[in-house]
Amino acid sequence: MTGLKRTTHKTLMLFSGRAHPELAREVARLLGVELTPTTAYNFANGEIYVRFEESVRGSDAFVIQSHPAPINEWIMEQLIMVDALKRASAKRITVVTPFYGYARQDKKHRGREPISARLMADLLKTAGAHRLMAVDIHTAQVQGFFDGPVDHLLALPILASYIESRVDTSQVTVVAPDSGRVRVAEQWADRLGGCPLAFIHKTRDINAPNQVVANRVVGDVEGRICVVVDDMIDTGGTVVKAADALLAAGAADVMVAATHGVLSDPAVDRLKNAPIREIVVTDTLPIPPERRFDNLTVLSIAPLIARAIREVFEDGSVTSLFGGAS
Amino acid sequence: MTGLKRTTHKTLMLFSGRAHPELAREVARLLGVELTPTTAYNFANGEIYVRFEESVRGSDAFVIQSHPAPINEWIMEQLIMVDALKRASAKRITVVTPFYGYARQDKKHRGREPISARLMADLLKTAGAHRLMAVDIHTAQVQGFFDGPVDHLLALPILASYIESRVDTSQVTVVAPDSGRVRVAEQWADRLGGCPLAFIHKTRDINAPNQVVANRVVGDVEGRICVVVDDMIDTGGTVVKAADALLAAGAADVMVAATHGVLSDPAVDRLKNAPIREIVVTDTLPIPPERRFDNLTVLSIAPLIARAIREVFEDGSVTSLFGGAS
Amino acid sequence: MTGLKRTTHKTLMLFSGRAHPELAREVARLLGVELTPTTAYNFANGEIYVRFEESVRGSDAFVIQSHPAPINEWIMEQLIMVDALKRASAKRITVVTPFYGYARQDKKHRGREPISARLMADLLKTAGAHRLMAVDIHTAQVQGFFDGPVDHLLALPILASYIESRVDTSQVTVVAPDSGRVRVAEQWADRLGGCPLAFIHKTRDINAPNQVVANRVVGDVEGRICVVVDDMIDTGGTVVKAADALLAAGAADVMVAATHGVLSDPAVDRLKNAPIREIVVTDTLPIPPERRFDNLTVLSIAPLIARAIREVFEDGSVTSLFGGAS
Amino acid sequence: MTGLKRTTHKTLMLFSGRAHPELAREVARLLGVELTPTTAYNFANGEIYVRFEESVRGSDAFVIQSHPAPINEWIMEQLIMVDALKRASAKRITVVTPFYGYARQDKKHRGREPISARLMADLLKTAGAHRLMAVDIHTAQVQGFFDGPVDHLLALPILASYIESRVDTSQVTVVAPDSGRVRVAEQWADRLGGCPLAFIHKTRDINAPNQVVANRVVGDVEGRICVVVDDMIDTGGTVVKAADALLAAGAADVMVAATHGVLSDPAVDRLKNAPIREIVVTDTLPIPPERRFDNLTVLSIAPLIARAIREVFEDGSVTSLFGGAS
Amino acid sequence: MTGLKRTTHKTLMLFSGRAHPELAREVARLLGVELTPTTAYNFANGEIYVRFEESVRGSDAFVIQSHPAPINEWIMEQLIMVDALKRASAKRITVVTPFYGYARQDKKHRGREPISARLMADLLKTAGAHRLMAVDIHTAQVQGFFDGPVDHLLALPILASYIESRVDTSQVTVVAPDSGRVRVAEQWADRLGGCPLAFIHKTRDINAPNQVVANRVVGDVEGRICVVVDDMIDTGGTVVKAADALLAAGAADVMVAATHGVLSDPAVDRLKNAPIREIVVTDTLPIPPERRFDNLTVLSIAPLIARAIREVFEDGSVTSLFGGAS
Amino acid sequence: MTGLKRTTHKTLMLFSGRAHPELAREVARLLGVELTPTTAYNFANGEIYVRFEESVRGSDAFVIQSHPAPINEWIMEQLIMVDALKRASAKRITVVTPFYGYARQDKKHRGREPISARLMADLLKTAGAHRLMAVDIHTAQVQGFFDGPVDHLLALPILASYIESRVDTSQVTVVAPDSGRVRVAEQWADRLGGCPLAFIHKTRDINAPNQVVANRVVGDVEGRICVVVDDMIDTGGTVVKAADALLAAGAADVMVAATHGVLSDPAVDRLKNAPIREIVVTDTLPIPPERRFDNLTVLSIAPLIARAIREVFEDGSVTSLFGGAS
Repeated sequence: MTGLKRTTHKTLMLFSGRAHPELAREVARLLGVELTPTTAYNFANGEIYVRFEESVRGSDAFVIQSHPAPINEWIMEQLIMVDALKRASAKRITVVTPFYGYARQDKKHRGREPISARLMADLLKTAGAHRLMAVDIHTAQVQGFFDGPVDHLLALPILASYIESRVDTSQVTVVAPDSGRVRVAEQWADRLGGCPLAFIHKTRDINAPNQVVANRVVGDVEGRICVVVDDMIDTGGTVVKAADALLAAGAADVMVAATHGVLSDPAVDRLKNAPIREIVVTDTLPIPPERRFDNLTVLSIAPLIARAIREVFEDGSVTSLFGGAS
Repeated sequence: MTGLKRTTHKTLMLFSGRAHPELAREVARLLGVELTPTTAYNFANGEIYVRFEESVRGSDAFVIQSHPAPINEWIMEQLIMVDALKRASAKRITVVTPFYGYARQDKKHRGREPISARLMADLLKTAGAHRLMAVDIHTAQVQGFFDGPVDHLLALPILASYIESRVDTSQVTVVAPDSGRVRVAEQWADRLGGCPLAFIHKTRDINAPNQVVANRVVGDVEGRICVVVDDMIDTGGTVVKAADALLAAGAADVMVAATHGVLSDPAVDRLKNAPIREIVVTDTLPIPPERRFDNLTVLSIAPLIARAIREVFEDGSVTSLFGGAS
Repeated sequence: MTGLKRTTHKTLMLFSGRAHPELAREVARLLGVELTPTTAYNFANGEIYVRFEESVRGSDAFVIQSHPAPINEWIMEQLIMVDALKRASAKRITVVTPFYGYARQDKKHRGREPISARLMADLLKTAGAHRLMAVDIHTAQVQGFFDGPVDHLLALPILASYIESRVDTSQVTVVAPDSGRVRVAEQWADRLGGCPLAFIHKTRDINAPNQVVANRVVGDVEGRICVVVDDMIDTGGTVVKAADALLAAGAADVMVAATHGVLSDPAVDRLKNAPIREIVVTDTLPIPPERRFDNLTVLSIAPLIARAIREVFEDGSVTSLFGGAS
Repeated sequence: MTGLKRTTHKTLMLFSGRAHPELAREVARLLGVELTPTTAYNFANGEIYVRFEESVRGSDAFVIQSHPAPINEWIMEQLIMVDALKRASAKRITVVTPFYGYARQDKKHRGREPISARLMADLLKTAGAHRLMAVDIHTAQVQGFFDGPVDHLLALPILASYIESRVDTSQVTVVAPDSGRVRVAEQWADRLGGCPLAFIHKTRDINAPNQVVANRVVGDVEGRICVVVDDMIDTGGTVVKAADALLAAGAADVMVAATHGVLSDPAVDRLKNAPIREIVVTDTLPIPPERRFDNLTVLSIAPLIARAIREVFEDGSVTSLFGGAS
Repeated sequence: MTGLKRTTHKTLMLFSGRAHPELAREVARLLGVELTPTTAYNFANGEIYVRFEESVRGSDAFVIQSHPAPINEWIMEQLIMVDALKRASAKRITVVTPFYGYARQDKKHRGREPISARLMADLLKTAGAHRLMAVDIHTAQVQGFFDGPVDHLLALPILASYIESRVDTSQVTVVAPDSGRVRVAEQWADRLGGCPLAFIHKTRDINAPNQVVANRVVGDVEGRICVVVDDMIDTGGTVVKAADALLAAGAADVMVAATHGVLSDPAVDRLKNAPIREIVVTDTLPIPPERRFDNLTVLSIAPLIARAIREVFEDGSVTSLFGGAS
Repeated sequence: MTGLKRTTHKTLMLFSGRAHPELAREVARLLGVELTPTTAYNFANGEIYVRFEESVRGSDAFVIQSHPAPINEWIMEQLIMVDALKRASAKRITVVTPFYGYARQDKKHRGREPISARLMADLLKTAGAHRLMAVDIHTAQVQGFFDGPVDHLLALPILASYIESRVDTSQVTVVAPDSGRVRVAEQWADRLGGCPLAFIHKTRDINAPNQVVANRVVGDVEGRICVVVDDMIDTGGTVVKAADALLAAGAADVMVAATHGVLSDPAVDRLKNAPIREIVVTDTLPIPPERRFDNLTVLSIAPLIARAIREVFEDGSVTSLFGGAS
């Protein structure tokens, strides 16, 4: 045959946007690679400029960018990074979003709303992403919004192990802070050896459906250590109200475990004064020192992401990392 | 300007596959149109043949096909109908699936599974569907799987009105038959005037996660009329076990309300002997006389679908039909 | 350069649906691999569930599924398998359809019909198939329906070699059973050393075009061994009528050779009593023992498929397997 | 509702490329419209420039361009016209190709060939065509190559009516000039009242498959008026050899009917001296006076195209124009 | 024919994002419509929420959003608005971007850069935009980045008329502030009756190509009123340096005309103290009172946009508004 | 894991159309490979036939075709070659267009024009091209028209080195022949050590914008060696008029440097008699001996293309070849 023949190589390259560089650096360290040097800044009118400082041709590129505030800024930066990688001939582009933005807008709650979680998936695909890796997307169905393989990583084993090290699980009741999270709370209960479940029932007035009239505890929590589990803590209102309702219902103590520490204002103020023994989150989002407080524990998500990237690169199995989906 | 000018007209045309012609005929009757005559049969080797008996050029076509068993047969027939409409120059094609098949496979529960609910949405789009109308899809997020407008109709008002006519709602506790349906049960509770909630907690062995060890009732049901609400009744196992658990926990009575009466074997045997006062479903799926039984009530979904089709055709508002999404 | 470098490997993995596992196992045996363990079953309402039991990440996947009855079931299963492979990060997905369903609906014979053969190609592509391999598609133009590489395998060499071993080709006339297959019959005649051709002319009434009025033999068949060649035998009507017409026109003997033994009812009854010396097909479709009969010979297609898969995997030439297309 | 409301109009606009303006003008005349004034020329280096001289915004545009030599020039011009219409906001674009180029490359005859007929369909789609209208595409399956509605017009009624006016059909045998056209010849025979069929069998040497060794007549033609039917006459070699073989086999007379008069060199020289009573074609392609000769009859295709365009514009039925496909 | 027939109507609906509502309101006023009431706000973590307060089904929607800072915020809001319109069944969606962001990143200036102007076009298309309307995109080629019709509006006539009202054009030299804008300056010169041209030549060191070494005036400006023309004034550095160089080269006076007043810091400080008689821009971007200064003149762009929207809605001609493109 | 594992190889294969085989052969020679044997010819009616004579399965294919006249012929041939490669399972297809046709139609200059440069990019993508390599496209923005990686090669270093070898650059003024090329002229000036710039200002009558009234020199050229730089010389009118104007303005001498020698009639006649010392082009387009003349110098572009192909194949950096884009 005519032609020039070569053995094919593949090269894992890691890229980080400016949203959460500490996490990306830790993932890189665990993988034993350097982040590819990248220039990124904003022009005077706010437009983002990105350029990679070395050739990325043929690479197996992983673009790590979490989506904290200012969230639209960081999503756009990630899109622009993917575009630049595509045009610079990266072979495969995996978007890594430790926290996947807009996941809560996963359906039309009322007419004439967007489904922004689907839109984000389509924007990433359009920019050139072949694959998506994310940690605990608000609803697992969002996996199906992306037209390609999704590695959906679960922080539950990390959080649950920590909880097990801190409390006697025979005294625990797992609590869903609202009716939509009971399924996930059930997974926690199974994982913690079959402990009881409860949830907070928010009653609404049929004529003013956005107004919550009351928070009722459904399930038996008297004398129990209640572990409230959620995917994220945003303004903290939901978990603080849950804690109040649980203690009013006789709970012995309240702990909170959540994957994503969004901690939008006024979360820090609310939480540090709340009657909650300990709040456990991971660092999928940056939590600067000034927003950390005494009863907050931050676990590292980097080992999970690093292992998953390695499995993807080596054509191993991500499923094997948990009983979870891949 | 050169050219030939005409006022534009639009023509609503209704098409029915062979899965549930009674429903399509009823919708047509309510709309005051005839179903467009269609030839459809299977060749000896099972291939489906479809042809429309009159011109469909320029039409605003609504293709009604529910997805009962044999489900793959009826999905394929709908795809083939859409292809034929596209190639025959229908202007706009809306797929109407009163029961949308494969909706339960809406995420990867474990690694290396399909997301069949997304696949179905993509297949319909590929065949040529511009729009989708469906009733109570298993999870509302499936709306986001379709790349185009979705009219998601809710049977809750129909079912709830009937329940209100049958029981004293002050004595009702709404019960979710598993942890994933508590959110929907909460919507029922709001609708029924803020009545209490409960759910069935299925405990699993961590080493055999597909084995349910026990069904625990979470919430207070003693002396209450429990209305178990679900999107569908398939083999009936879930609701029968729920009824047993509720009665064991002291419930005064049990009713069941669900949108879709799938009623796969052995549902009929199970349900007609179950300690359930009444089971209420709609006719989104065909329920032949031999599968009807004494405590089963079947409400008509046709008025809801007919009104929604009319709103879509007339560029009105589907949202206005409920507080629901459009 | 930053990054982690590896030599790239590729792994051929074979998958089989439930339509014709014997063929897939034989192909696997010839290739020296195991079929990848796969769970597949139907839920109570008929929905198909599929899951692969080991990691398929990065694989060069070949999904073997023929399309016998219930044909829509097996096509849907193949689509779902492809979706699961795509989402599980298979690198390249080749759909292998020994018999490609719906190939006869390859154009609109009349207005307002679908072109189902194109639709199937688009559905496979949408699910995630990159490539298609098929044996003797009803019309070769269907290759062009798939947006990607197609390996179109020809059974003619296998069938013709067998015929040559059974009859004196100097006495053979090749017969097309209808006017649309004369071109293929000509290829047979060339292959058998330039023997004569004939075909069956079906006359129709212009006012009832679907009614065949008579079957006339065009060409000289008196005293000849007539080999009727077709791509498939479905209900057997066409070849039995051809045999009758040929014998009436003085043929000495009749043999039939066809790639696909569809054998829909009442093919078996018709054929075992027909005045045909021998009917030769391949096993692109399953033919269970109870549908086999004395004058039926079934040749194995597995060696052809196995060789083609090996060439595709090794980047060799499929064209070199015959003078055929690749 | 907020907003500005108007009754919608649609405007048929006809556009012609430079390949066959006479035909476009005749179609326009029959429709009672003017061709939209268009500037089109080639730059010095051969690039084509096109601009429409009046607004086409919102129009229902029909772009008539046949594909005579220099065929690549005219295809490219049509693509550029479609691009300009798309960017100028035409509402719907129908490509009208009286002769659809490259239709003969409708499959891979051997490995590593293109499927140019599919490629042309995809190029038209990419440029912006929503619909395709064509007359007697070489193989009807090419309809399925275009991803959208195709109006496939049949010249058979026009040609057959003319033949009926010229010969006593009871004396006619319809002849396919090669094995691939027997199916179409059969449609002719049905149309002409069930007259006999024959075809020319080209024998090839298995070791030199592109070499035709002999042309054998299959079927009885002695004393018959043979009407050789084909979709196109390109260099004329096929029909002249057919005529020779038929006369050698005792035919009383030979006529030829074909839709497309391609008449590439040396067709004119061959045909005017051939022993053929009359050659009938339509003007789907331009036939300038100097390439017309005594025994050539050219029928007008414009009435068929004009009626079809009107039906498409008025949302009528093209199928109703024949028993043909739409 | 079966079916329900109606005359078709179309309804123009105007939507405004939060970036520049004054302009949208003025456009609405000129068109005689109301902006469709829209809810839009940011959640605590910065995610944008949008909902339309009345049905938009079937509408001809125009979504006005300019792209000032924070630019990524406003682009994302526009994308989300388009997604919501698509899912709410708007019939046609035209994105109106008076200032189209990221237009300067219209090519890779160096390797491994994005082409963000193309990316933005693709994102808008993906979200659901059918058409794009913009004023003076940085380079006209960006029109070709959008896969659909683009109405490219030119502010030159508005700006030039104003200049003509302010100076004696026989004394004017049009000046391009850098080498890339000379072509546009030439269009100005033609428009102003053939006046002379000049431009600023920025010399760079070959070893430090991003460093400008000097600004040389090319062309004769001595004693002339120099009108520096540009598409936008961002930080003002370019035009201030141009003014300095022109005055140093003997210019009698300097005026500046630009379409887009981006006016990023420190533009206002620079410009109000610069030796420039008058700076003329339009209000394609919001310029709040505190950023206006004495020698700044802001012309209204709303009449141009309103007329263009009306022409698009009425299927008129946008080209007729200028000699410009559409 | 089940399956068959192999190390992956990649094979560079070079293909040439018939437009400029000398260049392709020289590139092949420099790369040390043979052009893959290819059959290509036109049928009698002008349709192009292409077939590759050996297997291309899995190859990294580079398809070299420049676009001289007859330009539509050669573009179509390239599209057909790409289609054949795609269907024959080439792994990656890079289209190499030393001269990219239709690049000047890169925007709508007036309403209702095509954007042919975008159309060509889309056609190449549709046919199956994954990547594009081109030399000095008329405007660099055309890079953004292709949806994939573009390697944009710059001839400036080659041309400038030659100029430096021929003249004393301290005496040079670089001249843009029209206002649209001043930016490129500035890059030349930087490269030649910061020499002065000038350009030709074409004045137009506002009422007849396509008529050039006069060619004014802007900038100081008296006594200078003027190097007129352009991307292409088509009919030569522009550069000859520039030379005339420059000499009239006192230039000492005129040289011309351009990447592409299109040399359409009457370029050769014009240029060989023009007062130009030397005209330098590269051989991106074929220049047959009879169109060469005394003061024409043709530099070889093959080394640049060969190096770029090697970098692409080896996953090296094309950017490193110049300071240019990749």
